[in-house]
Amino acid sequence: MASAPFDFAPLLPAGLPAPAAKWTGLAKYSFVGGNNDPDQVPVDGLVDAVNAVLKREGQALATYGLASGPQGYRPLRDFIAAKLKRDAGIRCTADDILIVSGSLQALDLVNQSLLARGDTVIIEQETYQGSLNRLTRLGVNVIGIPLDQDGMRMDALAAALADLKRRGITPKYIYTIPTVQNPTGTILPEARRAELLELSQAYGVPVFEDDCYADLIWDGKRPPAIHAMSQISNVIHIGSFSKSIAPALRVGYIVAPWEMLSRMLALKTDAGSGALEQMVLAEYCAPHFATHVPKLTRGLRAKLDTLMEALNEQFGTAAEFEDPKGGIFLWVKLPDHVDTLKLYQAALAAGVAINPGPEWSTDKTYAGSRLRLCFASPTHEQIREGVAVLAEVCRREFGVPTRSANVEKSA
Amino acid sequence: MASAPFDFAPLLPAGLPAPAAKWTGLAKYSFVGGNNDPDQVPVDGLVDAVNAVLKREGQALATYGLASGPQGYRPLRDFIAAKLKRDAGIRCTADDILIVSGSLQALDLVNQSLLARGDTVIIEQETYQGSLNRLTRLGVNVIGIPLDQDGMRMDALAAALADLKRRGITPKYIYTIPTVQNPTGTILPEARRAELLELSQAYGVPVFEDDCYADLIWDGKRPPAIHAMSQISNVIHIGSFSKSIAPALRVGYIVAPWEMLSRMLALKTDAGSGALEQMVLAEYCAPHFATHVPKLTRGLRAKLDTLMEALNEQFGTAAEFEDPKGGIFLWVKLPDHVDTLKLYQAALAAGVAINPGPEWSTDKTYAGSRLRLCFASPTHEQIREGVAVLAEVCRREFGVPTRSANVEKSA
Repeated sequence: MASAPFDFAPLLPAGLPAPAAKWTGLAKYSFVGGNNDPDQVPVDGLVDAVNAVLKREGQALATYGLASGPQGYRPLRDFIAAKLKRDAGIRCTADDILIVSGSLQALDLVNQSLLARGDTVIIEQETYQGSLNRLTRLGVNVIGIPLDQDGMRMDALAAALADLKRRGITPKYIYTIPTVQNPTGTILPEARRAELLELSQAYGVPVFEDDCYADLIWDGKRPPAIHAMSQISNVIHIGSFSKSIAPALRVGYIVAPWEMLSRMLALKTDAGSGALEQMVLAEYCAPHFATHVPKLTRGLRAKLDTLMEALNEQFGTAAEFEDPKGGIFLWVKLPDHVDTLKLYQAALAAGVAINPGPEWSTDKTYAGSRLRLCFASPTHEQIREGVAVLAEVCRREFGVPTRSANVEKSA
Repeated sequence: MASAPFDFAPLLPAGLPAPAAKWTGLAKYSFVGGNNDPDQVPVDGLVDAVNAVLKREGQALATYGLASGPQGYRPLRDFIAAKLKRDAGIRCTADDILIVSGSLQALDLVNQSLLARGDTVIIEQETYQGSLNRLTRLGVNVIGIPLDQDGMRMDALAAALADLKRRGITPKYIYTIPTVQNPTGTILPEARRAELLELSQAYGVPVFEDDCYADLIWDGKRPPAIHAMSQISNVIHIGSFSKSIAPALRVGYIVAPWEMLSRMLALKTDAGSGALEQMVLAEYCAPHFATHVPKLTRGLRAKLDTLMEALNEQFGTAAEFEDPKGGIFLWVKLPDHVDTLKLYQAALAAGVAINPGPEWSTDKTYAGSRLRLCFASPTHEQIREGVAVLAEVCRREFGVPTRSANVEKSA
């Protein structure tokens, strides 16, 4: 007699997220996710690095943390400290750095060490979907601060902090992606960073600075990190190698005062992040990072140009966007009546994956006709074809754009 | 005017673990942790593998999950499916497997998908400290089932299940390390596995099978996995490459019915585990795993022999232990009046790191005079010297052993 399969359903706790769907492969035209340009992975350099480091230190893989302790492989922390000093003005040593499994683990560790259900945090109104989803799942109230072409608006932040204070609420942090903001691509100028730090100090609210896109700036020029400008160590700074080297390597880092780093270390119960990836990155980056990144950004800028040209050609004035200062994504406004959540579904059915705006914003109405397009992973040809398909789907569903490639279209 | 550093303390939520202490390096004689033998890391094989796979597929690192989807690198899942069929009798395909960042992430995902504060689970009375600590932090009640030389006692399990049922409690799972149990080194015989499955089915409680040491068996012979023997898919099975290849590579896996795998996948919000390590493992293991493991276990067995000889020589009859059937640790009983929590402190001060028994048991009294000694990482010489230092410290603190190396000692 065959028995029925065991039913786990009665054992599941309340509040689980919906089960994952079976994976069905990448979309033909994929404009989503932090994927990068396959042609820009420095494969030869990584091969040389892994050969050198494994032959020299391969036996260290027998020991958790490579005998560098729980904060991560020492040579990689040394490289990060040097890089952060050179690029972002941050003065720190390897002791101030915790290597983590991608900046997603950094988000989790910062959240776990500071947040409880019912807490309030301040974030940018348009922000990274993964950060927003984490806060929602934790039952945390988010206050979204509007952005302009220079990033988070300090007048709006000051008003929000004052309002919360009147209501007796101290937010747990101010989360910002100041240097190539996700999804808007803006860079917060130095003067605003100073204002942000003044507000942070005045209200006793620390800053959570997510600099994971900061390496990808077209002209290579960036203001100092907010962490670097702080006089009172009130900033937790995180970064990643996902955008500068390769996303499938899951390596990021946290720079924070020991008071917080020791809390996060106690919560990082994974016996260390992947050691081989840390070894390879340290070995490759120390000599090559500074020359690799400008080459990468030139390639990304060329793809952005292709994307903007394709949007202008296919959507005309129906698609509005600012030229981002770096990164791998473009934040696009379509006519008000276009619902990008619906467009997302219809486009996916036609083989085009996009990020609908409402998933990247605390203001679902404002973002309802907006979308994010990632341009690093598809080829130039895929970008042009994918945007043409997207325009066709948008016209079919919403009647716009009415013209494509200077040809009048009927909806 | 210099400002005082920002004080994060008022912002910390209740219930955080104690902050981590600064890392001060490995003990001179380290008998703790799942570290392995540095001489047994197959460095040359890993170098060849990483060269081959990176030259062939390195560009895939530009895409999260290597375009294999969120369950992990497809060739590694294929290898795991073949290995589990050959070694453990498990019939599964790549679709039934989720690659995770070490079996610690597997523990977290299983726990998150099944447990809520106040739930009850059944575990082995002596068990892995990391599993025990996780359950304590989650606020879960643990019922410890005593072990004998054949692993978990089925009479005690039956009694515990009946007792819980009388009290209206359905435990969420029965957690077991059946194949080279941690810390006792026992292997649950096939007949007990069948009994366990009968009890599991009768009481509607799934089995959580942790097989992370199962590759390290001296004679290479093992019973089929409990997962393999189940007719009703009521077993979640986890494993790891930490013990068979290298612990610093953080790669483990979960085999479970899609009903549960889809829940765990929804909770795995880390954008995939380290891809380079998955690629290297797949490339190395497919041709080499079956020949590497017997070589590794011969070396481990030799170290165990050195450890048991050193204990006999230094502790005489004061140290009692069973010869484990595999693994990297020995579970040792000292005279009843020895408090291994105190011995741990005194030994550490003398440069010897051990695992005190109470941290590895639900019965703090039973385990109070017991300890776990890991033997894979230290050299034969370090094992002999470390055990001699440990005996000296134990004599100084507790008056035993009274004889070492056949010489009478005064306490």
